[in-house]
Amino acid sequence: MVVGKKINRVDAVTKADGTAKYTEDLLDDKCLVAKVLHSTIANGKVLSFDLEEAKKVPGVVKIITSFDVPDIQYPTAGHPWSTEKAHQDVCDRKLLNTRVRFYGDEIAAVIADDEIAADHARDLIKVEYEEYPAIFDMEESVNNPGDVPIHEEKPNNVIVKSNYEVLDYDEAVKEPGLIKVTGVYETQKVQQCHIENASSFAYKEAGKVVVVSATQIPHIVRRVCSQALGCDMGKVRIIKPYLGGGFGNRQDALTEPLNAFLTLQVGGRPVKLMYTREETFFGTRSRHAMKFYITSYVRPNGTFAAREIVAYSDNGAYGSHAHALVANAVNAFRMMYPVGAIKGVAYTVYTNNPTAGAMRAYGIPQIGFALEAHVDDIIAKLPNDDAISFRKKNMMQLGYVDPGTTITCHSTGLSECIDKGREAIGWDEKIEKYKNQTGDVRHGVGMGIFCYKTGVYPIALETSACRMILNQDGSIQLQVGATEIGQGADTVFSQMAAETLSIPFENVHILSQQDTDVTPYDTGAYGSRQTYVTGMAVRKTAESLKNKICDYAAWMLNKDRIDLDLVDNHIVRVGTNDVLISLKEVAMEACYSRTNSNHIAAEETHHCSDNTYSFGVCFADIEVDIPLCQIKVNRIINVHDSGTIINPQTAEGQVHGGMSMGLGYGLLEKMLFDPKTGRMLNSNLLDYKLMTAIDTPDLEVAFVEPKDPSGPYGNKSLGEPPVIPVAPALRNAVYNATGVAIDSIPLNPEKLFQEFTDAGLIK
Amino acid sequence: MVVGKKINRVDAVTKADGTAKYTEDLLDDKCLVAKVLHSTIANGKVLSFDLEEAKKVPGVVKIITSFDVPDIQYPTAGHPWSTEKAHQDVCDRKLLNTRVRFYGDEIAAVIADDEIAADHARDLIKVEYEEYPAIFDMEESVNNPGDVPIHEEKPNNVIVKSNYEVLDYDEAVKEPGLIKVTGVYETQKVQQCHIENASSFAYKEAGKVVVVSATQIPHIVRRVCSQALGCDMGKVRIIKPYLGGGFGNRQDALTEPLNAFLTLQVGGRPVKLMYTREETFFGTRSRHAMKFYITSYVRPNGTFAAREIVAYSDNGAYGSHAHALVANAVNAFRMMYPVGAIKGVAYTVYTNNPTAGAMRAYGIPQIGFALEAHVDDIIAKLPNDDAISFRKKNMMQLGYVDPGTTITCHSTGLSECIDKGREAIGWDEKIEKYKNQTGDVRHGVGMGIFCYKTGVYPIALETSACRMILNQDGSIQLQVGATEIGQGADTVFSQMAAETLSIPFENVHILSQQDTDVTPYDTGAYGSRQTYVTGMAVRKTAESLKNKICDYAAWMLNKDRIDLDLVDNHIVRVGTNDVLISLKEVAMEACYSRTNSNHIAAEETHHCSDNTYSFGVCFADIEVDIPLCQIKVNRIINVHDSGTIINPQTAEGQVHGGMSMGLGYGLLEKMLFDPKTGRMLNSNLLDYKLMTAIDTPDLEVAFVEPKDPSGPYGNKSLGEPPVIPVAPALRNAVYNATGVAIDSIPLNPEKLFQEFTDAGLIK
Repeated sequence: MVVGKKINRVDAVTKADGTAKYTEDLLDDKCLVAKVLHSTIANGKVLSFDLEEAKKVPGVVKIITSFDVPDIQYPTAGHPWSTEKAHQDVCDRKLLNTRVRFYGDEIAAVIADDEIAADHARDLIKVEYEEYPAIFDMEESVNNPGDVPIHEEKPNNVIVKSNYEVLDYDEAVKEPGLIKVTGVYETQKVQQCHIENASSFAYKEAGKVVVVSATQIPHIVRRVCSQALGCDMGKVRIIKPYLGGGFGNRQDALTEPLNAFLTLQVGGRPVKLMYTREETFFGTRSRHAMKFYITSYVRPNGTFAAREIVAYSDNGAYGSHAHALVANAVNAFRMMYPVGAIKGVAYTVYTNNPTAGAMRAYGIPQIGFALEAHVDDIIAKLPNDDAISFRKKNMMQLGYVDPGTTITCHSTGLSECIDKGREAIGWDEKIEKYKNQTGDVRHGVGMGIFCYKTGVYPIALETSACRMILNQDGSIQLQVGATEIGQGADTVFSQMAAETLSIPFENVHILSQQDTDVTPYDTGAYGSRQTYVTGMAVRKTAESLKNKICDYAAWMLNKDRIDLDLVDNHIVRVGTNDVLISLKEVAMEACYSRTNSNHIAAEETHHCSDNTYSFGVCFADIEVDIPLCQIKVNRIINVHDSGTIINPQTAEGQVHGGMSMGLGYGLLEKMLFDPKTGRMLNSNLLDYKLMTAIDTPDLEVAFVEPKDPSGPYGNKSLGEPPVIPVAPALRNAVYNATGVAIDSIPLNPEKLFQEFTDAGLIK
Repeated sequence: MVVGKKINRVDAVTKADGTAKYTEDLLDDKCLVAKVLHSTIANGKVLSFDLEEAKKVPGVVKIITSFDVPDIQYPTAGHPWSTEKAHQDVCDRKLLNTRVRFYGDEIAAVIADDEIAADHARDLIKVEYEEYPAIFDMEESVNNPGDVPIHEEKPNNVIVKSNYEVLDYDEAVKEPGLIKVTGVYETQKVQQCHIENASSFAYKEAGKVVVVSATQIPHIVRRVCSQALGCDMGKVRIIKPYLGGGFGNRQDALTEPLNAFLTLQVGGRPVKLMYTREETFFGTRSRHAMKFYITSYVRPNGTFAAREIVAYSDNGAYGSHAHALVANAVNAFRMMYPVGAIKGVAYTVYTNNPTAGAMRAYGIPQIGFALEAHVDDIIAKLPNDDAISFRKKNMMQLGYVDPGTTITCHSTGLSECIDKGREAIGWDEKIEKYKNQTGDVRHGVGMGIFCYKTGVYPIALETSACRMILNQDGSIQLQVGATEIGQGADTVFSQMAAETLSIPFENVHILSQQDTDVTPYDTGAYGSRQTYVTGMAVRKTAESLKNKICDYAAWMLNKDRIDLDLVDNHIVRVGTNDVLISLKEVAMEACYSRTNSNHIAAEETHHCSDNTYSFGVCFADIEVDIPLCQIKVNRIINVHDSGTIINPQTAEGQVHGGMSMGLGYGLLEKMLFDPKTGRMLNSNLLDYKLMTAIDTPDLEVAFVEPKDPSGPYGNKSLGEPPVIPVAPALRNAVYNATGVAIDSIPLNPEKLFQEFTDAGLIK
């Protein structure tokens, strides 16, 4: 058994010894440098550029402005695409935009021999604008859109409004004796903060434009580039090297389309377009700030009778993933506690903020915070319920079929996760111990649960292909279009291949680099889909390869195929398991046979038509220093049901990373903007407060492993979920410690000071 | 129809505009530099190295000597390999050799930060040798091998001796009335002189040693490196970029095994090993010098009764391709005129010259010169025959089955080729006109014919695989393990794919770079095998892809598969040819279908079990300035039967290149060595006399195109053959002009002076 084993990452050594090649490592030393000029107003349009001084800078090769780009509006979202117009993404940006919509919009680009010349020339470009009033608040954007809409296609600044209803809400609320609880919950805009900035370089070769880019979604970026350039898809080639994190930001076409265009403006010479940290902050994507109005009607026995949510999502200046996130959030509002009548309304709104897009767990950390805060607000009003009893009563149960998406709960270990976490954190004792505290420093425990889908079916296409080649030494080459982005995907795919083929793990050689010219199609790394969707493609391909190997061995041995199997790196007789020949001998003969050479390879598509829920819980035990407005996390534990854990070691790493990100989300992180101009104020890793090693407590992790019947190896989503339950657990722990229910994050000292002052704890 | 059309090379633009990436273009800028220390004696052994001074040079990272390499003897020949020991190549060298066998043998290597440090340190290494007498003459090497054999495994310096007999030679010579003709013919050692020197760089990544190299045979080099390093094949990865010519020299592992070893000595850091022109001359491979003793018994009616050949081949210091070449030559001696009793003996001999290996047409230019010279020598003694009548009477006919190899003559246009060339050159008039010349400048016409196999079956394995992927725009990706080495292979493979798929040529995107981790297996570019063997793999794969496309279209259209075909880029109804849907629409649906996505790709092996002969003739019309010992070629024409010509434009280019190489072989080229030390004297492109544009007459080309039933598109070998008949045609033209039959090449002024003096033309 290789699946389920703790195994070191396949890329551990190559990353540690520096031989792993990232985009910048592959740069041509004759590469030209492109620098983008960003708008210095948040709303308006460019009237003219004065390039005279810029062009005089020695080393400037070409300057391209928004007046020079094709009149094509294209989408950037890393969605699978559809041939039906209704399912396609918003096409609302050009390669460079004359109509600017946020402070930092891309309006021109300088191509020069070196960085210094490009920077200098860029700074010498003079721009004349016509300026419009900017709108930075999402509700104001809907309620008071102004004379000039941000995009003329959406006169009221609403990209999409959607709604659903389960049962009859208006009837349900009439039930006598219901307790009504309302709340308004807000989450902030944060950034993915992957260590490698948005970076790419492009060149022309053999009639194709080639873009080497740190992307999560090479095959999708290929399609987006072809749309942006107006060329055939076969004329675009995307190469994805090792990369330094993505977390959803790279589930979008970022620098690639413009970079592809720029190389074509200089005859296909290599051009690099590497964003600085500052540009990556405001010029790529971020997590959506959201605002939720929630009303619940609960029976005194602790069950939901009816709930309503109205959600706003600040999409910023351009469409990107647009409504998909808040729709996901409002759907999860329904799924997590699928009890009673439910009504949901969601708005995705253009504002003049930088564009929001995908980020780890895609709308669910937002609703997760709001809903789990709201649940604790409800419990506070119930006579007989506590945090655990209420949740267990109302949460999703095995066999649930979601009425909106038809996604079925094939397996759930959530109740067991809660029990395990409750035990580990010492919940019951601490609830007792932390009652009736006084003094400056108070302790509290809090929890949050979540459910999370696995991939994007049936909202969008789920598809994946895989290829394997048998090497002469009996090892295999494994190629997937799915991407290793630091999360350990290559390791688990290798385990899966070894498992199904019954060969040693070290005999699987996976290619970490994707190249759309040769790599099997896959939509990429997002939606925690890869182990589930791509995993099944790996399994199918391994089965196909195994079958071909056994076919060949049957010919070699002059035996019936049906009597042979590949077990433990050898061809054996089915039944007796007698070893007949080694896989290496079969591989050598297949390659070098003088009578029947056969270069054994297999390539299979998995078209996925299923989905399943993973679950989990976070328990936090904290102390709050009220006068200092500081939270110290003494213990924190995430317990996950992600089905079978393919690799406990890398899974734990995933959870650690998610918890760290959840801590930052709950306690520290926030993108800050000048309220007048919309300019980002903390676009660097000094002023933007990420969790550091010093801030981070020991991160405890446990798993519950029901084997999911729909997962290729019993597995379900794990990549994104760990981030979800942390912020609400912290918020609820603060509530438990201080009695102050805070309805927005981050819980930074500024916020705590305000809240504790309002509550009279600070005078 | 795309096959048979004049089409520009697919790589024409990318090579012209400089965007095609060669090995050196891909170099890591942090690459270390390796320089090899070559022995300064031709025969002996290294007793010790003194590295003290060398190590002091700043920038030296490591010095590896022949005492530091694994005790593994490995083969270098670019042969397909066999699992049977008897069919494996000679394993007679180590990565660096303590027992040195030619002046220039590789005995140590310096790895340094830069070229200057590496060169300087290399020059400071002191070596103490024990020296043995060197043997540079191949017959002497056999007859008088000395006390210390060049390789202890072959005490008599003969690598292989082989012989065959057709019919009973001793009986046949007894026939009364036979005319006996004897001759001794010699050909010289020449170099392939590809423009890009032997060059590679290597590094370690993801647990593999990666070698980027200008090789004709990436998959074979992978195997050789694994043998040399003693590691699994799956742990070696070879990447072949665009390259600047090969002509057989790169059908051998050259710098790759040592380069792979060197990177492992410095922790996997990138190390480049780029030979200079000088090193490429003596340190890689060359064409074998051969010597043929031929005796013929001919009837007065101009038919062969019996023939005998004894051939010697100077293999130099190491095995490389060894006996395969002279065996090929002595077999062709039989095949070309398969009439009467035939006896052949061949010796491949070690000497202390630099190693000979594969070069364009692999032994056949040697025998082609000898045999066609000998035929003209015979004709001179026959009462009723001329050059054409004798050849037509005795040459191979349709249906011939070679008794040695079983290769069958499936098609022949040789007679028509001769007729076409005879007509074009004005043979009959010129034969008449050039009779009885006197004076200093005399004119002559000469001809030579040849036959040439197509690939290496059944001598060795013939196998090839191909992969195709359908892009969303209906274009395809084409991957072959066969290599583009400048000969235009990528273009004809693209034509073949377009032809069989019935799609536009420009919709085929071929990958010119091979990467053994992802590229389908193929043995590589040699033996003029690619259009024949790989071509069939392309055809099979295209048929498989077409089938999958039609299957998918049948699902889309809800029709029976059998009613559908892919014609002219559209799915049509069989019979009526009604257009039902475009290929692009099928491709888009296959990629993006919400119900049945299918990433259509095909990968097929062609195990080739056939072979066929191509033919051709060269006619030359020259003038000889006797006192100046100068030959001027006034007209020269090659007429080829290579079956169906896939691309007349690139085929003509191939023939031009071959004729130019044949002219150099016949007139100018020769590797010269110091007779005492064995040091090469003209190892640069100034002193080594290649044909230049100024030396080269108009090269006339014509084709005869019988469709070969065994070729994938009716085609047969073309890549190598054009070089074969040129030298004998020139020699026979000199004979015609002057009456002097010269039995060795090159026909340079030095040789002509000697011959004309001996003949009394110069006094």
